[in-house]
Amino acid sequence: MGLGRVSPLEEFRRFRERMNERILDAGNLEIKRFFALDGRVYEDGVLPALTKELMGLTASTVLRCDDCIAYHLIRCKEEGASDEQLFEAFSVALVVGGSIVIPHMRRAVALLDELGDEDAGLS
Amino acid sequence: MGLGRVSPLEEFRRFRERMNERILDAGNLEIKRFFALDGRVYEDGVLPALTKELMGLTASTVLRCDDCIAYHLIRCKEEGASDEQLFEAFSVALVVGGSIVIPHMRRAVALLDELGDEDAGLS
Amino acid sequence: MGLGRVSPLEEFRRFRERMNERILDAGNLEIKRFFALDGRVYEDGVLPALTKELMGLTASTVLRCDDCIAYHLIRCKEEGASDEQLFEAFSVALVVGGSIVIPHMRRAVALLDELGDEDAGLS
Amino acid sequence: MGLGRVSPLEEFRRFRERMNERILDAGNLEIKRFFALDGRVYEDGVLPALTKELMGLTASTVLRCDDCIAYHLIRCKEEGASDEQLFEAFSVALVVGGSIVIPHMRRAVALLDELGDEDAGLS
Amino acid sequence: MGLGRVSPLEEFRRFRERMNERILDAGNLEIKRFFALDGRVYEDGVLPALTKELMGLTASTVLRCDDCIAYHLIRCKEEGASDEQLFEAFSVALVVGGSIVIPHMRRAVALLDELGDEDAGLS
Amino acid sequence: MGLGRVSPLEEFRRFRERMNERILDAGNLEIKRFFALDGRVYEDGVLPALTKELMGLTASTVLRCDDCIAYHLIRCKEEGASDEQLFEAFSVALVVGGSIVIPHMRRAVALLDELGDEDAGLS
Repeated sequence: MGLGRVSPLEEFRRFRERMNERILDAGNLEIKRFFALDGRVYEDGVLPALTKELMGLTASTVLRCDDCIAYHLIRCKEEGASDEQLFEAFSVALVVGGSIVIPHMRRAVALLDELGDEDAGLS
Repeated sequence: MGLGRVSPLEEFRRFRERMNERILDAGNLEIKRFFALDGRVYEDGVLPALTKELMGLTASTVLRCDDCIAYHLIRCKEEGASDEQLFEAFSVALVVGGSIVIPHMRRAVALLDELGDEDAGLS
Repeated sequence: MGLGRVSPLEEFRRFRERMNERILDAGNLEIKRFFALDGRVYEDGVLPALTKELMGLTASTVLRCDDCIAYHLIRCKEEGASDEQLFEAFSVALVVGGSIVIPHMRRAVALLDELGDEDAGLS
Repeated sequence: MGLGRVSPLEEFRRFRERMNERILDAGNLEIKRFFALDGRVYEDGVLPALTKELMGLTASTVLRCDDCIAYHLIRCKEEGASDEQLFEAFSVALVVGGSIVIPHMRRAVALLDELGDEDAGLS
Repeated sequence: MGLGRVSPLEEFRRFRERMNERILDAGNLEIKRFFALDGRVYEDGVLPALTKELMGLTASTVLRCDDCIAYHLIRCKEEGASDEQLFEAFSVALVVGGSIVIPHMRRAVALLDELGDEDAGLS
Repeated sequence: MGLGRVSPLEEFRRFRERMNERILDAGNLEIKRFFALDGRVYEDGVLPALTKELMGLTASTVLRCDDCIAYHLIRCKEEGASDEQLFEAFSVALVVGGSIVIPHMRRAVALLDELGDEDAGLS
């Protein structure tokens, strides 16, 4: 990534953060509560956070929500998921959700490679 | 918006209009009839147009169709909806459709702000 | 309805109530919070409860969830919706969601007639 | 099928016909127009009716609408589709839509067998 | 369960098994291969079978496929999942997929109780 | 298309091919098998490839998967489909899937025109 240029991944993070703030500031109490709940549900419980994030990733993939996939992919990596584990999650999503899942898997794997480059200090 | 540059919102409007014309000109009678029906169903009836547009907005949001959301958001504003009313519509869509609705709500609220800027003569 | 027999509508209500209690008693805090939120979001706000219930009905119809349709249909009637208004809601859902909505509309209208019979003391 | 008993297939046909009439009698013009359109779109055009019915069957299967599947299966048979052709349609739907299609394919094949029995005068 | 009567759960198992055989016997090679793949994808890999079944359960729940939920619920129990773990899976599915998931969760929990009764020799 | 510039269509093809290779190289056997199956299911059988591609196009359109639509549109043209036939496929998808299909039809028809320009040596 050259000086001052923003990667698509970084752009996603910034837009996500900026709009989440904008939405929470709008003052709708039910939306606020939903956002709080959306964070809490992935925390360690009787199932560890990684398992919950893998479930969130699989659910997002079969529902074909690119931004949700991106978010859970980042979180899965933070919780220590290996690429091989993530591909197994994709294989389950692919069989459950069918070939319409493939375009989202392509973009998810492109993001996975971008995340790998970030970790390696390449971007 | 600088000289000659076209905003994403304006681009959406132009592409939408140009392709609708292209499709209607193709001469498929059933598609033509569907398009006519798609306009008529939101007109004032025993329910006012605003209520129908809010229903169209909520349905588009839970079905996660960005272009449909954009269209109904514009129409809701034309029918006099306040931002607070639109956020209540989003809150219903969010609870019905779950967190996969959130990325679409982010883009919808960004559009809402762009529409507000247009109204204020800022774009 | 003969002595002691339970109508499908009554069966739906009982199963719904019994299982909701069972689920809330299971002690999962996030599920509990979601259920609370699911009630609150349809209360009077800047939009009246009826408009919200009509939005909930339309959203449930395009998402093709029979039990959700049944629930919002009952609530719409309680908030004073006329049959003509409900058919307009169905017409919006039908155009947005397409012919796959029709089987759910058939069951919804059958339920509407059953609710009308209840009101008239016929069941 | 014993005297006077009605098969699930026959029950489906009767409920479908009765409710369609009920809905059309309710007087909502947009719904009426949609129903007319829903018939016309499968008629012979530059594509023959059988191809369109096979497309309708595949679309209904990936959208997992049992009643729509039943309707298009009956129509495909009327247009002369063989079981082997129908299984090829299911195989496309299965790969496109994934394993969530399977329960609907099970019910569709059970119906196919029931239709075969009817043709053979066994029901 | 009285003498000779078949529980809904047992009926589901029998219909599922009978129709799967019927479908595999029909001789469509692609469908056969898909069915094989559908089994293999949940086997122990770098992720254990239980994690994969929990992912399958969550995916089936957000996609609102009752039969798929039933199958994965049974498999999760066989792999040793506790009720508390299953409720955490449901809580993730509920937040991801929204209130339209609730009717399926109700039926899933009713099945969970039926499975518990079977284990306890009560049915 | 000027020297060195890449059209959106060409970009789609390159990204698709590059990521498919990347995914197949990752070594997950189930994903590999699914990809093989995804090719085979559209080959000539008792139904000709064109019919299967039209079914794939309709299924992709009602499921609103732009990349899948693009792929099947290209394949339909390769198998000899006329524009008029493709519009009939869209008309079926539109009636089955409703107005939420329209934005995808707009993009599909824009692609169809781009494909026509390619054939005419205009791009």
